[in-house]
Amino acid sequence: MTALTLQALDTPAAIVDIDRMQRNIAVMQARMDAHGVRFRPHIKTSKCLEVIRAQLRAGAQGVTVSTLKEAELCFEAGIEDILYAVGIAPAKLARAIALKRRGCALKLVVDNVAAADAIVTACRSENERLEVWIEVDTDGHRSGLAPDGETLLEVGRALHDAGIPVGGVMAHAGSSYEVNTEAALRALAEQERQGCVLAARRLREAGIECPGVSVGSTPTALAAERLDGVTEVRAGVYVFFDLVMHNVGVCTLGDLALSVLTTVIGHQPEKGWVIVDAGWMALSRDRGTAKQPCDFLYGLPCDLDGTPIEGHLLISANQEHGILAAAGNSVRGEEDALAARFPLGAKLRVFPNHACATGAQFSEYHALDAQGGLTPWHRFRGW
Amino acid sequence: MTALTLQALDTPAAIVDIDRMQRNIAVMQARMDAHGVRFRPHIKTSKCLEVIRAQLRAGAQGVTVSTLKEAELCFEAGIEDILYAVGIAPAKLARAIALKRRGCALKLVVDNVAAADAIVTACRSENERLEVWIEVDTDGHRSGLAPDGETLLEVGRALHDAGIPVGGVMAHAGSSYEVNTEAALRALAEQERQGCVLAARRLREAGIECPGVSVGSTPTALAAERLDGVTEVRAGVYVFFDLVMHNVGVCTLGDLALSVLTTVIGHQPEKGWVIVDAGWMALSRDRGTAKQPCDFLYGLPCDLDGTPIEGHLLISANQEHGILAAAGNSVRGEEDALAARFPLGAKLRVFPNHACATGAQFSEYHALDAQGGLTPWHRFRGW
Repeated sequence: MTALTLQALDTPAAIVDIDRMQRNIAVMQARMDAHGVRFRPHIKTSKCLEVIRAQLRAGAQGVTVSTLKEAELCFEAGIEDILYAVGIAPAKLARAIALKRRGCALKLVVDNVAAADAIVTACRSENERLEVWIEVDTDGHRSGLAPDGETLLEVGRALHDAGIPVGGVMAHAGSSYEVNTEAALRALAEQERQGCVLAARRLREAGIECPGVSVGSTPTALAAERLDGVTEVRAGVYVFFDLVMHNVGVCTLGDLALSVLTTVIGHQPEKGWVIVDAGWMALSRDRGTAKQPCDFLYGLPCDLDGTPIEGHLLISANQEHGILAAAGNSVRGEEDALAARFPLGAKLRVFPNHACATGAQFSEYHALDAQGGLTPWHRFRGW
Repeated sequence: MTALTLQALDTPAAIVDIDRMQRNIAVMQARMDAHGVRFRPHIKTSKCLEVIRAQLRAGAQGVTVSTLKEAELCFEAGIEDILYAVGIAPAKLARAIALKRRGCALKLVVDNVAAADAIVTACRSENERLEVWIEVDTDGHRSGLAPDGETLLEVGRALHDAGIPVGGVMAHAGSSYEVNTEAALRALAEQERQGCVLAARRLREAGIECPGVSVGSTPTALAAERLDGVTEVRAGVYVFFDLVMHNVGVCTLGDLALSVLTTVIGHQPEKGWVIVDAGWMALSRDRGTAKQPCDFLYGLPCDLDGTPIEGHLLISANQEHGILAAAGNSVRGEEDALAARFPLGAKLRVFPNHACATGAQFSEYHALDAQGGLTPWHRFRGW
């Protein structure tokens, strides 16, 4: 059997650089160990057991998931400690209870009294005790309760008084994706920490046990100076990093572990365009860098060895066509150089804006080892 | 067995309204029949055999595909006449030849001499004769050769002189997505027709047989006033339509056949936000309406019966969270009304920006019949 190589692989394909991934995992885990907190990786980025196992081997304790499907598949793979970090819809409680009954230490999340009541009702009816965490909003970007508001205590009491254990409070400072200085990231991490610690303290003062204090986003996890009062941190995209994280300032281009392998299928010489077979179906429609200081359009091309091709970008994408061109104005009279640099059939890789979205376009990764060998790694999908 | 209904279905889910889809198929086919041209639907939108079979039953002849995987799966389902409408990478020729040898009337597309030469070399080496169509560019938006340029004839000769049949010329006026008046669409359709007919005439005058003249995009297919000289039309998104097509002006909201079913999982009353369980993993990151006169952000919510919820939009999306709010400024003091209108657990549907991108986020559709029954329809994916 000939070993699969990048040159021989069908395109488009999603490539995971194993060394870079392992380094990203080690750096994050070392930082969490130094803080003395548990680390619970968010698997929504990879949705891949090989990646999750590497995170657990490095010291992660339990996982965070974004869908019950991820929870079910992780549990079937032997992972028991699972936080489902999206507020649960009442109709999904039957699946959650079924998973718990199989032995899963599943933790649900709520941010409103109606959802807490629905959990209480379902647990009573099924004679079960689901563990519930309360979501706290520390930066106003999405869901969660104000750490200093009354609803937090109402939700806590609704659960506690019905005998449902409140496992903790959790926050996700998603707005950290929108800043790009160390000072701003530090401030946001501290705001996330303070809000979450405050929420836990208020619940405890109200007589509600609340052992866990969980914070996290990749930028705040890496930027936090202190994590007093925090018991665990969650982060997802750090495992691969991407151009958005590069713009945020928490990784270098040399840390990007996910790329899309593509092949040149044509040229538009007058326009300075190289047409490749990675369109948005492969790269995703995510334009996360559009609002950042450096807009990478549909991605940054690199050579097969991972070296960025300076001054060029994927400037546009149709479903199965990508257009590579010089960033900014193309240089007139260099059409021949372009065709020589990127001839028909040439292969290159593209670093994506957002690893979570680009990975989701594929059924599998091809994991690239230091010897250039490739191994297929399956990805979950669906809900 | 209880029949599956929208109320009972797990969310998020991709819903296809069968009646609307059948009407869209019938309208397009009737228009093509009136023009006296063959219709070859582009299956990249649905990637679903049930949809493709409905198109063929209505009178479509052959299919257009965007990947060899689609070609292989269609052929295995009994469809033999297949146009692979993306310029082929030389490394994919072995798969194309294998498909032809199984009996598939596969048509490849090229737009450059190097690709034509690669086909000639592969065909010689394998003693095969692949049918090749030449891609023509009539609106400068992507790949394809100038209909009045020399390269067109060079590519034609490279194939013809080596005994490779040139099946025809094909163009895709993708820039039709960027206009929104009937006059502009008509002009673009005529430009597409003229360019393609000119290219075919020049090839024929050079002694190269070129029986086929294939044009198409959903907007130009529906807007074309005359199709003299055209032998077939291709279109894809018309089968479901979407908000982009609504903005282009070629369908009404009542024609939109694809929507995403979602459940309310929380609220941020102070902000006037309703949190739902359809984020970008379900809706896709496609923001196709962003550059159009009416920006629908992440989609237009509707009730379970498909009635748009006036004045509201999905204003933002995280991976598994969508935020529904009043379009424009939210109305202060109406927070309670919002929670009453969209209580926890309530289900609604969301019309997407771009049906091709949203469909691709799902492994299956749930096809909704006139009686409210649902049937799962599998979707292809990958390359």
